[in-house]
Amino acid sequence: MARKKQTIIFGNKPYIIGSYSLVGKKESDGPMKKWFDECLEDDTYGEKTWEKSESKMLKTAMSEAMRRAGKNKDEIGVVLSGDLLNQLMSSSFTARDLHIPFLGMYGACSTMAESLLLGAVLVDGRYSDDIVIGASSHYCTAERQFRMPLEHGNQRPPSAQWTVTGSGAMLISSKSRDGGFRADDKGSWNRLKHIRVECGTIGKVIDAGIRDANQMGSAMAPAAVDTLLNHLEDTGRDLDYYDVVLTGDLGYIGKDIMKDLLIDAGISKNMLDERYDDCGCMIYDLQQDIHSGGSGCGCSASIFAGYIYKKMTTGELKKVLIMSTGALLSTISPFQGESIPGIAHAVSLVAE
Amino acid sequence: MARKKQTIIFGNKPYIIGSYSLVGKKESDGPMKKWFDECLEDDTYGEKTWEKSESKMLKTAMSEAMRRAGKNKDEIGVVLSGDLLNQLMSSSFTARDLHIPFLGMYGACSTMAESLLLGAVLVDGRYSDDIVIGASSHYCTAERQFRMPLEHGNQRPPSAQWTVTGSGAMLISSKSRDGGFRADDKGSWNRLKHIRVECGTIGKVIDAGIRDANQMGSAMAPAAVDTLLNHLEDTGRDLDYYDVVLTGDLGYIGKDIMKDLLIDAGISKNMLDERYDDCGCMIYDLQQDIHSGGSGCGCSASIFAGYIYKKMTTGELKKVLIMSTGALLSTISPFQGESIPGIAHAVSLVAE
Repeated sequence: MARKKQTIIFGNKPYIIGSYSLVGKKESDGPMKKWFDECLEDDTYGEKTWEKSESKMLKTAMSEAMRRAGKNKDEIGVVLSGDLLNQLMSSSFTARDLHIPFLGMYGACSTMAESLLLGAVLVDGRYSDDIVIGASSHYCTAERQFRMPLEHGNQRPPSAQWTVTGSGAMLISSKSRDGGFRADDKGSWNRLKHIRVECGTIGKVIDAGIRDANQMGSAMAPAAVDTLLNHLEDTGRDLDYYDVVLTGDLGYIGKDIMKDLLIDAGISKNMLDERYDDCGCMIYDLQQDIHSGGSGCGCSASIFAGYIYKKMTTGELKKVLIMSTGALLSTISPFQGESIPGIAHAVSLVAE
Repeated sequence: MARKKQTIIFGNKPYIIGSYSLVGKKESDGPMKKWFDECLEDDTYGEKTWEKSESKMLKTAMSEAMRRAGKNKDEIGVVLSGDLLNQLMSSSFTARDLHIPFLGMYGACSTMAESLLLGAVLVDGRYSDDIVIGASSHYCTAERQFRMPLEHGNQRPPSAQWTVTGSGAMLISSKSRDGGFRADDKGSWNRLKHIRVECGTIGKVIDAGIRDANQMGSAMAPAAVDTLLNHLEDTGRDLDYYDVVLTGDLGYIGKDIMKDLLIDAGISKNMLDERYDDCGCMIYDLQQDIHSGGSGCGCSASIFAGYIYKKMTTGELKKVLIMSTGALLSTISPFQGESIPGIAHAVSLVAE
């Protein structure tokens, strides 16, 4: 029997009514600066350890997403979130401080899409009216956990990616909310659009056999291709149904592999050049010495919660497919001869 | 505004139609032996590393739960699972091998209840007809990740708990399934009951300020109390509504604290003595040198998927509340002066 469809349709119209993105210094120096809600001048964020800084970033993003949605934390049914730290340290401590029922998610860098998808399920199914989702990562916590202590000053190969210091959070609600008006570049006032979570595709774990922890893009690209093709097949859509299709953090190498594989699958190169991009390639300038681009849960989280959310509220983007991509890299498994499995989940958003 | 209810009611009747539990040697030597579906003689399970052994245990549990439910893996919409290993190594590799869409969960030892709860949401909401959930832990992988390498042979304090080597998996379906007949002790044949997931309560992260990684029961008990009291309040039930209320792995110390706190909250000691127990106190015999009892995702996973499932199919237990309890213990945070936050989720099952 063939695999059943992997795509869930949200018929009851869950809406994203609040969003907040917060990034570190290096991200603030990049080309996406104007799209983030808060840019830190100091990546410690006033805390004594990097882990506490990251946790504070996530907590701020969630608190601000609630504030912007006009909700207080007692109105929130559940928080769904995750991060890259072992035992979800950032999310656990954030959930402790917020004192909201909590479901911890782990999908490596795919966590933002996983949380968004399951959050939409809970709201769409009328299990909760208001839910907060989020994800975070921090260059300094990720380096010491997955690679080398920063003090070691090790050289990075050209294929390495730079973990984004950033967090993003969204508030999903069963009811849309009037966002008011905003002036465009020409000075005319436009009503802000409502952003609806329309459907989501749950990805499979795909292992391309990559064993090099500095080749994350290659490890994740096949999973992203699989999820995207299944999404298009399930929904009967072509890629150009979407104004933009964004992967999370494939980086330059992974993005090229993704495009090659999609072209092999029959999607035109022109369409891909026009509509497909990767958050890991967007968030930094190549001159920022980031080698193969950005990575980490915070990469797609901050771009979705910042850039995509804002471009959709103004109506500049109407249909967007966001796909966070995760490399399920264990620090132990490579020593046991294992390769790095990848995963990607897709969520379709509509501005209306 | 007061916190909204934390409890989700499953009106569309999701059923557990298959279940499998598998444990290691020490667990097989304990008092629960006859309730497990498979007892290993050798905790390596034929693999070269403990992590691969654990992953194989989880995969076997899921595959057998599917087989017993009469489903093949192409019929399964999603796998929801988690474990204690960093980056969910067991679950990720299991999901890779099964090739079923995967959502990774992390709630430390509360993962079995978290997965069951969210799996029931997906089935109840008609997002998928058949879902597999599971969790695992392994003494040897947990010791080296959270405490000391086994070779170190360190002494364990009396408050320490023994991580269960075990896995459990269940198949949740939108349709019940005739389980046939089974002979009871007196030789008469009885039709097996259907087990329905009736409701679930999502827990909050509660931090009791415990900083000692060998005091997990104390760290988790306040969270379990909070979830249970919220569950009873949300549902308007008394504790004796249930034939049995089981926590996951509070162990002897945590169970005593739980009882004391519940007595303080007005629940009678008699009722607790009669109806409340903890999987961590049930799984081993005190003579097995396990100090304060069992712990780990596999503790509640194997008891729920083995003992509870079987006692409910025969109708011996009719209403059960299972609560996996998690200590969100990070290996880094204690060095940064942080305490250990706890969490617990509750799921109510009915045999009918």
